[in-house]
Amino acid sequence: MEFTTGQIAHLIGGEVKGSDSLKISKLAKIQEGQEGCISFLSNLKYEPYLYTTQASAVIVDKKFVPKSEVKTTLILVDDPYTSFTTLLEEYHKFISFMKTGVETPSYIGQNSSTGENIYRGAFSYIGTNCRIGKNVKIYPQAYIGDNVTIGDNTIIFPGVKIYSDSKIGSYCTFHSGSVIGSDGFGFAPQPDGTYKTIPQVGNVIIGNHVDIGANTVIDCATMGSTVIHDGVKLDNLIQIAHNVEIGKNTVIAAQSGISGSTKIGENCVIAGQVGIVGHITLANKTSIGAQSGVGKSVTTEGTAIHGSPAFEYKKFLKSSSVFRKLPDLQKRIEELEEKIINLPTL
Amino acid sequence: MEFTTGQIAHLIGGEVKGSDSLKISKLAKIQEGQEGCISFLSNLKYEPYLYTTQASAVIVDKKFVPKSEVKTTLILVDDPYTSFTTLLEEYHKFISFMKTGVETPSYIGQNSSTGENIYRGAFSYIGTNCRIGKNVKIYPQAYIGDNVTIGDNTIIFPGVKIYSDSKIGSYCTFHSGSVIGSDGFGFAPQPDGTYKTIPQVGNVIIGNHVDIGANTVIDCATMGSTVIHDGVKLDNLIQIAHNVEIGKNTVIAAQSGISGSTKIGENCVIAGQVGIVGHITLANKTSIGAQSGVGKSVTTEGTAIHGSPAFEYKKFLKSSSVFRKLPDLQKRIEELEEKIINLPTL
Amino acid sequence: MEFTTGQIAHLIGGEVKGSDSLKISKLAKIQEGQEGCISFLSNLKYEPYLYTTQASAVIVDKKFVPKSEVKTTLILVDDPYTSFTTLLEEYHKFISFMKTGVETPSYIGQNSSTGENIYRGAFSYIGTNCRIGKNVKIYPQAYIGDNVTIGDNTIIFPGVKIYSDSKIGSYCTFHSGSVIGSDGFGFAPQPDGTYKTIPQVGNVIIGNHVDIGANTVIDCATMGSTVIHDGVKLDNLIQIAHNVEIGKNTVIAAQSGISGSTKIGENCVIAGQVGIVGHITLANKTSIGAQSGVGKSVTTEGTAIHGSPAFEYKKFLKSSSVFRKLPDLQKRIEELEEKIINLPTL
Repeated sequence: MEFTTGQIAHLIGGEVKGSDSLKISKLAKIQEGQEGCISFLSNLKYEPYLYTTQASAVIVDKKFVPKSEVKTTLILVDDPYTSFTTLLEEYHKFISFMKTGVETPSYIGQNSSTGENIYRGAFSYIGTNCRIGKNVKIYPQAYIGDNVTIGDNTIIFPGVKIYSDSKIGSYCTFHSGSVIGSDGFGFAPQPDGTYKTIPQVGNVIIGNHVDIGANTVIDCATMGSTVIHDGVKLDNLIQIAHNVEIGKNTVIAAQSGISGSTKIGENCVIAGQVGIVGHITLANKTSIGAQSGVGKSVTTEGTAIHGSPAFEYKKFLKSSSVFRKLPDLQKRIEELEEKIINLPTL
Repeated sequence: MEFTTGQIAHLIGGEVKGSDSLKISKLAKIQEGQEGCISFLSNLKYEPYLYTTQASAVIVDKKFVPKSEVKTTLILVDDPYTSFTTLLEEYHKFISFMKTGVETPSYIGQNSSTGENIYRGAFSYIGTNCRIGKNVKIYPQAYIGDNVTIGDNTIIFPGVKIYSDSKIGSYCTFHSGSVIGSDGFGFAPQPDGTYKTIPQVGNVIIGNHVDIGANTVIDCATMGSTVIHDGVKLDNLIQIAHNVEIGKNTVIAAQSGISGSTKIGENCVIAGQVGIVGHITLANKTSIGAQSGVGKSVTTEGTAIHGSPAFEYKKFLKSSSVFRKLPDLQKRIEELEEKIINLPTL
Repeated sequence: MEFTTGQIAHLIGGEVKGSDSLKISKLAKIQEGQEGCISFLSNLKYEPYLYTTQASAVIVDKKFVPKSEVKTTLILVDDPYTSFTTLLEEYHKFISFMKTGVETPSYIGQNSSTGENIYRGAFSYIGTNCRIGKNVKIYPQAYIGDNVTIGDNTIIFPGVKIYSDSKIGSYCTFHSGSVIGSDGFGFAPQPDGTYKTIPQVGNVIIGNHVDIGANTVIDCATMGSTVIHDGVKLDNLIQIAHNVEIGKNTVIAAQSGISGSTKIGENCVIAGQVGIVGHITLANKTSIGAQSGVGKSVTTEGTAIHGSPAFEYKKFLKSSSVFRKLPDLQKRIEELEEKIINLPTL
């Protein structure tokens, strides 16, 4: 994507000092700027870079007075940080939604419909009876099963797999390799030592403004629905088992796993590589430290826990610090025992 | 999929009380029933829902006498729970195997054959010299390399990747994103600090009735075979390294990892996020708690272990409970030391 | 793939004793040899297998004198182990690079170029403005976004997803399901409890001789680049977050995760299921034990750490061994307290 310095100045309401026809294709930190990049100067700690940067243009405060010669084009604004953030968001939105049209070959089943400004990449697959909203971007090699609904402005990156009967909201993002609606892991042990598959006939329901990371898996419910509420953000390589429910605006970091039928509250923060057992409930605003193993429900809102098995965060830190001294403690106990034995009997 | 209440009654040997032409497309719990759903009433604790449910039909005991007016259609049977389970299984089987035929475009290499009732979804790929059995369902965008054999009635969901030379049994299920036969992780350190790739020329052999979860990876053997025996059930996001062997009917939960050349016995139960080192052996019926790290062989059948590093399950629970009290123990040792010092010398 | 015993003898500079027209399609250990296999005898511990093996041919030392009748064809060489290794490497190289040409349908966008001996499998996708080197093998259903560069001799297995703007070196291998360049996990909390997406506009840069395992994910940088240097080897199901940098020849085992902006040194060895927090630095040659949780920087080259939270490896082993005895230690403290109380006051 290419914009000119003039177009960018117009977008952020700034004034160009230099050339307004320079081509800009990237955003960069001022210390990493190269030709074709635009950067910004807000914290004056970085001012020295202004005189040496290779960036084609830099956004600066209109009141800023350079101490040396500036070779790069400047764009003068009221607040460089805010302007750069605006530019970043506009650029990202533009990139995200710039693909439109239908590449061939791609597949769409009978009785499925798509809204305006759709992008259907080559080798993407949409089953039968699907309802796909407007501005939805379905990248190459993505799969959407039968009877799936997807709201407006949702982006489905290459190779995402959404099983039949899933219901997906608006303004969601699914990264490559994420799998939505695979069978829950349910097997009934038989007398001969084998396992019989418990049929998984439920689905997955995902709200609006949900982000799903690369290679994350959300299993369908055994019956009913696995539910991911509005605003949930899931990082990469996460496991969400059957019949789990995740409350609004909860954030989960990479490689964590939630076992079947557990209900997670709203606005929880779960760090990376956490494991949570099945059939428990976590109160709203629970926070869980990295690599924790959570074995029982948390009933008080705002509780912080850590460890495997997990308990109160501050207590875990204390126990953990004593853990390092265990060999010393053991020695001190031995010494005490020695001294007690050597006490003269009275 | 749609069935009528009459067709369902016929399938489970029941009698319709109400309309036999209602359209049923879903199975649901009685408290979650909606139009188009069928449910069941077995435990009378749920009887109140019978009078309020939105389900189109409910399977009930033929001896059951309602206490209030029932608006929904009933199907009368001898044992509602068993009938519903039968229905669930039949429905699941029907859904699983309903796809047939070859969608275009799809790819099949020279000298490969497929059995009757095959489904080859659009953008699926089958290499050369493959033997694919009957009733095999290869969903869109699945990949099957060269010289692969697949037994009858195996289901390969969208985007599964099966590398060349793999041997797959009958009645297996592979969920989306699972990878079978990728190179084992073997690199020989060189004097200059770089690593040289150790060629991985073996394959993967998978028995019958094996289930592989979404985004699970099974590496090929360095030489010989990585072997997954009959009836093994693997959850999502699991790592199985080169030359591992997993015994019959062993079950492994999500995000666990087994390192190279380890042999796991039959009927073991391994919980989620477990790590197992390479080159060890686990006896039959070993059970391993979640997040454990297993560093040495288990030789006694039926052993239960837990922790990282893992040891006897019950002992781990005790140590783990004392771990929480470590700051207190430390304080008590300090107090003892204080008291001993203050004892009058005799 | 099939070779004759004569062709193999020629390749490794050996002499055939037996038939030079036997067809060989596999390499195997002597104890696992079957028809169509070639094996080798180096360690004489395995000599008994020579007389019973089903392998079609065995590579032996030219000075070796059999004690019994040998039915299999022999290939006589100076050093059987080295010859077999050479054969293994040649075979692997041959298999890896044997695919050439363009299968249909496959997709390539405007203004993209590919070098000689390219393989573009069916349903593979290359976006616009890509530069793909010679001998690159792009397997079926792989995705390469816009503006991507890939060096010579790189292999991209089925279903790999490489997002736009990634820069990939030469002699790299990407296994199935790996995702390169997905959005970093960045969200800014808002006053109403929701999260706003922080645009991720950077990319991923990967050096030469890098191996990426199946279903491993490398996120793009927020701005700038996530960088994987030459010779890095990543196993399966690994998470590399935005703006991480991994130094030359570092090796990371399966299911480990590195959080955002962390810098890992050269020649580090990181075991499986390790978690590393963001914004820290690890010195060169750091080694980290399996399932460790690393919460702070390592500044001394060659440090070995273990545990969650991780500390010095040897100290962890000691603490861990005392951990098992915690219930006993607790009891001994109670006994000491008892004894102290019972001491007569003087």
